[in-house]
Amino acid sequence: MRSNRLQGIRTLISEKGIDSFLVSQQENRRYLSGFSGSSGWLFISQKKAILATDFRYTEQARQESRDFEIVQTKGELATWFTKLIQTHGWHRLGFEAQHMPFATYQQLSEIIETEHLDLELIPCQKMVERLRFIKDTMELNVITKAVQLTDAAFTRILATIRPEITEREMAWEIESFLRQNGAEATAFDIIVASGPNSALPHARPGERRLQPCEPILIDMGARIDGYCSDFTRTICMGNADNKLQEIYDIALEAQLAAIEGVKAEMNGTEADKLARNIIEDAGYGSNFGHGLGHGIGLAIHEIPSLSRLSSDTLSNGMVFTIEPGIYIQGYGGVRIEDTVILEQGNIKVLTKSAKCLSF
Amino acid sequence: MRSNRLQGIRTLISEKGIDSFLVSQQENRRYLSGFSGSSGWLFISQKKAILATDFRYTEQARQESRDFEIVQTKGELATWFTKLIQTHGWHRLGFEAQHMPFATYQQLSEIIETEHLDLELIPCQKMVERLRFIKDTMELNVITKAVQLTDAAFTRILATIRPEITEREMAWEIESFLRQNGAEATAFDIIVASGPNSALPHARPGERRLQPCEPILIDMGARIDGYCSDFTRTICMGNADNKLQEIYDIALEAQLAAIEGVKAEMNGTEADKLARNIIEDAGYGSNFGHGLGHGIGLAIHEIPSLSRLSSDTLSNGMVFTIEPGIYIQGYGGVRIEDTVILEQGNIKVLTKSAKCLSF
Repeated sequence: MRSNRLQGIRTLISEKGIDSFLVSQQENRRYLSGFSGSSGWLFISQKKAILATDFRYTEQARQESRDFEIVQTKGELATWFTKLIQTHGWHRLGFEAQHMPFATYQQLSEIIETEHLDLELIPCQKMVERLRFIKDTMELNVITKAVQLTDAAFTRILATIRPEITEREMAWEIESFLRQNGAEATAFDIIVASGPNSALPHARPGERRLQPCEPILIDMGARIDGYCSDFTRTICMGNADNKLQEIYDIALEAQLAAIEGVKAEMNGTEADKLARNIIEDAGYGSNFGHGLGHGIGLAIHEIPSLSRLSSDTLSNGMVFTIEPGIYIQGYGGVRIEDTVILEQGNIKVLTKSAKCLSF
Repeated sequence: MRSNRLQGIRTLISEKGIDSFLVSQQENRRYLSGFSGSSGWLFISQKKAILATDFRYTEQARQESRDFEIVQTKGELATWFTKLIQTHGWHRLGFEAQHMPFATYQQLSEIIETEHLDLELIPCQKMVERLRFIKDTMELNVITKAVQLTDAAFTRILATIRPEITEREMAWEIESFLRQNGAEATAFDIIVASGPNSALPHARPGERRLQPCEPILIDMGARIDGYCSDFTRTICMGNADNKLQEIYDIALEAQLAAIEGVKAEMNGTEADKLARNIIEDAGYGSNFGHGLGHGIGLAIHEIPSLSRLSSDTLSNGMVFTIEPGIYIQGYGGVRIEDTVILEQGNIKVLTKSAKCLSF
């Protein structure tokens, strides 16, 4: 599996006209090498695959990245970088322009000048990301496990949620469940937002106590073997008022329309429009301020983007979210989100939880 | 407090000869504005303080950043960035070179050209960081709370640790304790590394079961109101063998020597040397591969660095760690770490837990 990925990036390296490629972005590094540490650079050429990391991680790197030669970095960057480049005789080094800080680029440029290296730095974009957005069987299996775990957590929530518990307590109960049932981490900070707080798409759980008959928005994700799930339901203990039921029904209609309508070869804007049209027609266009969804994998947000300005083309094998929302400031909001995969041209929904507002 | 910080950055802006400064780094953004969301740019000039963020965060930004004008970003960067620059008539915009990706710099440069903006981008380094490394009273109070919480967690560990529990289970017990007693998060992934695993300075807790008479290295940190603590102890259930006792005693001697010897106005290399000399003299120099310590605050690693290559000058009001370690591959390792502050020229240790190997 991992060697397919190396082959894939070597093809892109060849197409890009570079003879070596520096991978500094954490998920990209892990995807290609298996190394899960938080610091290190990959150097990949047609013949070589090198993981340069410091003392803290070399032993872990040896265990996790058997296809890679491990180089322990020591002392000044100028010293070990120069030696590495000269040893391998590279002349055109690609780097991840969307990740490498400007100052690091400047530092490497200065080293090249000072050390008289015959080396050009070539900014590259979305090299590894282009491999990552199509998931292989192993990845899909892990993501499915993460999705099943959030489904199980939601079942548990419905059985245990009660008035007067605070948002923060509820979020902790969810996190505890995920972590004790196979998640190495949550995929992001869990959101439990009740009443007017649910109008903040990225609310932080606070001391507010959950009440009957108000929106409770729960957004959570599990991380297993590095891979994420992403899940949102909006629920209401008891009867919702007319307003809440209205916006819930519109959001649900929009979500189901997107699940039905999103097809392979659409672009991100077209996909987004399937849900947005319904919400706009109902008069809530300005209350749906974010995109319809985003790719998911080793990162919680990755390619493709399903949003108003996205030119990403949707392809079979992509895993992403479908999550329209309607937010009314001072009142509250709803969002309904599934993790899905494109298979044989159509959406297959991985999330299995029911979509009922009141319970 | 927050207005002092704005005043501080405005002084640095003036010294740097720029008329506006773009802050994109998350902790720097939070430090200056109070905004705790994960996405947004600050634009600061002598007269203006603007927080530009998207729909998801504008409501939160309004609540958290009352000294800032909130601009909701919408559509293409080219559109809103151009409008913002033209509205305020800025000509020299500083940016955080160690954080801004090369591709973003390129994108802004292209916008400047396409839109014919009379604007120069000026790379800046460690502008906000220079303010952050001296902690004010409010910050010190919060860090002290976080340190007290890790002390309390360690007391709990000593009372509950038992053979046959796995590293992963132990790490989860620690995290649960921290989270249920006031931490909004852990400051980093907790390390519980037993036996030979303790030779990996950044080991990940696994399925290995804790055994008597072997090293158990526990590294944990709590995060409260954004601020971190950092704590490591190495312990042994029952009697340690001679080797373990030997390296423990050396690491402890080195740690105490650093606590005694580190003074204001030293640089990071001199501080590191106080501990390193002792470990080298004992013949374990090559087994202490990382630095003596690092600054701590909103980030788990910040200025100053106490390490072989650090030219950072230590000043009163800085909070950092002192954490020498000795790691023997295949056998195990020890590390002893306190969070400390420099006050009136000397180290004051904030961490209160005892340093005993066997218990």
